[in-house]
Order: sequence, then C-alpha cells, then structure tokens
Amino acid sequence: MNPIYFTPGPSQLYPTYQQHLQYAMDLQLGSINHRSNVFRDIYKHTDEQLRKLLNVPSTHSIFFASSATELWERILLNLVAEKSYHFVNGAFSKKFFDFAQLLQKNPMQIIANDGQGFDMNQVEIPNDIELICTTQNETSTGVYTSSTQLSLLKDNNPHALLCSDLVSIAPYSSIDYTKLDCTFFSVQKAFGMPPGLGVLIVNHQCIEKSIELKKKGYNIGAHHTFESYQKNYLQFETPSTPNVIAIYIIGKIAEDMNQKGIDNIREEIKLKAEMLYNFGNESQLFTPFVESETHQSDTVIVLNSSVDSSIIINHLKEKGFHIGSGYGSYKKNHLRIANFPATSVDEMNQLIELMKEFELSYL
Amino acid sequence: MNPIYFTPGPSQLYPTYQQHLQYAMDLQLGSINHRSNVFRDIYKHTDEQLRKLLNVPSTHSIFFASSATELWERILLNLVAEKSYHFVNGAFSKKFFDFAQLLQKNPMQIIANDGQGFDMNQVEIPNDIELICTTQNETSTGVYTSSTQLSLLKDNNPHALLCSDLVSIAPYSSIDYTKLDCTFFSVQKAFGMPPGLGVLIVNHQCIEKSIELKKKGYNIGAHHTFESYQKNYLQFETPSTPNVIAIYIIGKIAEDMNQKGIDNIREEIKLKAEMLYNFGNESQLFTPFVESETHQSDTVIVLNSSVDSSIIINHLKEKGFHIGSGYGSYKKNHLRIANFPATSVDEMNQLIELMKEFELSYL
Repeated sequence: MNPIYFTPGPSQLYPTYQQHLQYAMDLQLGSINHRSNVFRDIYKHTDEQLRKLLNVPSTHSIFFASSATELWERILLNLVAEKSYHFVNGAFSKKFFDFAQLLQKNPMQIIANDGQGFDMNQVEIPNDIELICTTQNETSTGVYTSSTQLSLLKDNNPHALLCSDLVSIAPYSSIDYTKLDCTFFSVQKAFGMPPGLGVLIVNHQCIEKSIELKKKGYNIGAHHTFESYQKNYLQFETPSTPNVIAIYIIGKIAEDMNQKGIDNIREEIKLKAEMLYNFGNESQLFTPFVESETHQSDTVIVLNSSVDSSIIINHLKEKGFHIGSGYGSYKKNHLRIANFPATSVDEMNQLIELMKEFELSYL
Repeated sequence: MNPIYFTPGPSQLYPTYQQHLQYAMDLQLGSINHRSNVFRDIYKHTDEQLRKLLNVPSTHSIFFASSATELWERILLNLVAEKSYHFVNGAFSKKFFDFAQLLQKNPMQIIANDGQGFDMNQVEIPNDIELICTTQNETSTGVYTSSTQLSLLKDNNPHALLCSDLVSIAPYSSIDYTKLDCTFFSVQKAFGMPPGLGVLIVNHQCIEKSIELKKKGYNIGAHHTFESYQKNYLQFETPSTPNVIAIYIIGKIAEDMNQKGIDNIREEIKLKAEMLYNFGNESQLFTPFVESETHQSDTVIVLNSSVDSSIIINHLKEKGFHIGSGYGSYKKNHLRIANFPATSVDEMNQLIELMKEFELSYL
C-alpha cells in the first residue's frame, strides 16, 4: 500500500488526480498554446466547475496565480493604497500582515492568542481602512472563523473591502459571496493537487479599486495586476503563460466533486472531523489545541501532544500514515492532521485506530 | 503518431519528460513537504545538474519562480532603485521595458527595428543606470544577440548590473557568468516541459543590491525577494511552497542533457537550424525574416511567409506538425519555428520536406 498523506499541505492527492494527469498528457496539454481555443475551453470549463462547486456568483471573476503566497502580495498591491487591517491568530495570518508591512501599506492588526478566534461583533475597524484581511482557517494552529462571522464583519464594515484567505478550507466552507469581495486558496490543500497553482476570486469592486489605484499613480505591480487579469479573463485567457495542466486538472477535480455533491463532501469531512475530535477528547496524550468548539477547524485538526510529536509521527509513518508536526515553535508539542476530501472515512478510522494503539502501548 | 510541436513555447515535451513525471508520481512527490529532506535533496540535485549544464559558477545562486514573466518583475523590484536600461527589439524585450515603466523605474530604452540586432560597441549607457536588461533571443522575431556581445556590454559598462533574458535559448547558448550578473528563463521552451516554472540565476552582487535597496526603504516587493530566496537557498529550500514536481523534473532533464552532452545538443540544434535556414534561403515563399546572419536565432527561426501563414500552418497541422504563426502584427506574415532539443534531426527533416512539398504544390 502507498503511504497516505494526512499532512496539511502538500497533502494526499485527490483519488482521480492521476487519471486526469494521464489524460492531460494524452491530450498533449503540456505543449498547447495558451492563446488557443483549446486553452480557452479549458479555462471556461474550470471556471464553470469551480463556480458551481464554490457557489460563486457572476459578480466575481476567477483568476489563477502560482500560489496563495503570491496572492497575498497581489491582493495588497491591487486593493490597498494606504491602509489594510489584519486579523492575526497564527503564523499564516501573520505572514499576510508581514507582507503588508513589506509593501508599506501601514497595516493595522488585531491579534488573538494562538488557538483562539475572534468575535467580530467586538472588533472596531477604523473608517480609513481599505481592505480587511482575514484567514478563515489558520493552517498553523487549526483555528476556524465561521462564514457567518465573516459576513458579520462585512455588515459591520461596509466601507472596506473584505478578503478571506481560504487556504486549507476551500471548498469545505460555504461562503456568502455577496459579503466577500476577495477570496483565494492554493490547490495543494483540500483540492488534493501538487503545489503550483493559486486561485483568486474577486468581484468588480476589487477590479475597479485596482484600476483607480493605478490611475492615481500607486505602484500596483506589473505582473498579475487585476486589470490585466480581467482583460484576459473576458476571453478566458491569462496575462502570461500559466500552469495549463494544473488549470485543467482543478477543473476536472471540481467536476468530480460536483458529481459527488458538495453536500456529501462536506458531510464526510464533518464526520471525519468529529471522529478525530472525539478521539482527542477521550485521549490522555493527544487533546484538542483549540478549546472553543466554534473555532475548531474541521479541515486542519491540531492536537496537543504530551509526547515528543516526532515519536508518534515516525511511528505512524512506518505504518504508512503521514501526519504533520506542529508549526514553528509548536513543532514538538502539536500534531496537525489534515482532513481533506482526498482521504476516506475508512482511512481516517485506520489512522485513529493506530493512534489509539500507540497510546495504549505508551501509557 | 502523436503531433509534434515546433511551436516556440509551450513546445514539444522533452522525450524523457513523461517517464520522469511517472516516477515523480510513483514517489508521491505531489504530497511531500517542501521543508523535508526529500525536497532538499531534489533542489540540490536540480541545482547541481543545472549548474553543470549551464556552466554556472559558485558565485551564482539558482532560484525558482513561476514564470519568466514573474521574474521580469522580481528582477526590476530587487535590482533597480531608480533607473534601468533596456535593449528592445521585439515584443518580449518591450514587455520587460513596459514592466519597468509600470514599476516606476524610469527606464531608458534603445530600440532596434524588428528583425535587427544591436552592436554593443555603438551603445553608450549613462553612468546612473543600475541595471541593463537584454533579451538574448527575442522570441517574437527570432533575433539573437551573441554571448560575446553580451560580455562586451559588461566590459563597456562595469558600473551597472547586467541581466539577460534567456527564455527560448537556455541551455543552447554558452554564457560567460563572470559577465552576466542575472539571467533567467522559463521551462516550456528549450527544456521541453509544460509551463509553470521559471529559473533565476543571480550572483552575490544582485543579492547585496536587493538587501541594500530594502535597507534604504525601497519597496522591493514581499514575495520572492532575493534576500528571502538566498536565505532559503542556503538550506535548499524555497521561500514558499513551490512547484515541487517541476523542480524535480527539470533536474532530471538537465541530467539527461548532461549525459547526452551539452556539446552534442548544441551541435544538433546548430545542424537543424542550418537545415531550416538553408530551406529559407532557397525558398521562394518562405525567406528568413532576420537578414543579418549574426543575428539569426538558431532556436527560434522566423520566416517571412508570402502566403497567409494560417494556410501552411493548418496544412502542416493536418500532417501532425505544429508550427507557430507570426507574433502580434506579424501573425499572417511570419512563421515561427522552434528548434529545441526535444525535436530530432529526423523530425526537422520531415518538417522541411513537408514545407517543400507545400511550396511545390502552391507555386
């Protein structure tokens, strides 16, 4: 049996990934021109399938970049003249804030302790803030912010554009795109693909803001500006030669997911998450790091580890199950377990049984 | 028989590409962590093989981005405070200049008419220029600038950093890296891979310049800064999750090319180029666009087409041979034929025979 990756990205490939890759090779998609009808049809298909899967309305465009990290930069350059606001509760939301500092966007931040979330009704955001940056699923600590809370944030702050990093949660969370101006994610998490593609979903207000900033003389960058994205998108092209094969495959995987049904996918993830948290609640060695249930992520489950995490990680690896260590300073004290659509209920069950066996032998 | 792509990128895949891809899948490289030893060993191997193939000395580091287009931006942000200088003789060198304008780098340009090159001894570059940007092989028009001319440019202008875009020519040209501070290329040209990876090769002066600009308060961007690249490179890591599989495969293809021998690869390309130019010199319908032999590219051969180019392009496509149309306003008047390592002498011969047959039937 091949090892199974429960790592929080790169992660287990979606079961149909390899067959789509083989078909892409058979179609010679690695050699096709990105300004041809073959490519335009691919982009159109991927756009349709992602739109259906994520429930994206026609107010929003779907663009491609190389990674979510690149997109942090593009979003800040294109949507902020002077001031952004950041919800920081872990390493990745902090990096988004750090990018804003490097790009000299005078960012403000509200910080929650690691493992804790925010109550959006308690947060006051100044009137001069142009962009609010949130991270729905903090991959480093497994803290989740509900879509309802994100929508509330927009209701309370209609003066600012609202952006949410959906890395490690899309397509699991159900987003109300009438409230979210800008979202993005990378494909090596819950879409079960190798890294190399980022997806950006923005509405017309974002594109207009970017054009306005450029007109006013702000440096919005040269590559992947929202204006160049949109201009090319109108004919299902990209500003420059993109990762054609990844754009093809994410469309096919979204199609597979649509056929399975997003509700079924969400139910399965919910079930697997409950299994893992139940294990954590009963375990003496591995307890949930995020205490508040409303902030516990269903897609990246972080457990405190009373034993050096490398011991159980290596033990599980020998059995063919890869899980993640803690992030940064939590490396030895946490386990991070991805719960993405690519792994089955049965596989999650096997993983939990192995962890139980480990605990029994250890205690 | 599968169609053969003589298009100037994306182009024919290198003959060993698919076997390396399959092996990458077998190794589950799509799921591995980019901060693991498995990835570090991949980066190290690719670094070694590219270094050997391109004769890159230890003064230079090798970094990865998503495309050459992205790298235009990164290079300008990291190496220019106030002023860049651009050799423009076609659409792609012009885009490099356009990026500098968008990034507000007060760029200067010297323009050659389409199809013409430069004599570097005739060019005077102001003393306040920080970065000289050249394009060794202008993919839009098939104009080549010799490595000797590039070196001469550095000898004449030691005050500036010298950059050359090697898209559509690396690894064919032999570069003297004691003269070139910065070079870059994408993999969907002469390396015979699908798009999705750019390669950047810079020396210590470039990294120091970037650090100096940041210290002085210039906005050098947040993603893929030269400082973050170098810091990660020292342990064979990347600033963020990269296109792992493409980094693996370019290392394997470089290894294949090293085994074949770069001299043999260059001789084969030279021979195929001579075959094509000989055909053009004898043809009544298809004559070389670049008249000066010293400026004729061996890797992207552009021919004037006395017939609407789409007629012969479609004719050849029906026979299984894809070639490129002219770029931009030359769409109907030019043919662009890629002469990369992925196609054999025999295949080039077949293509030329088909073009001869077409000409005979047409005249």
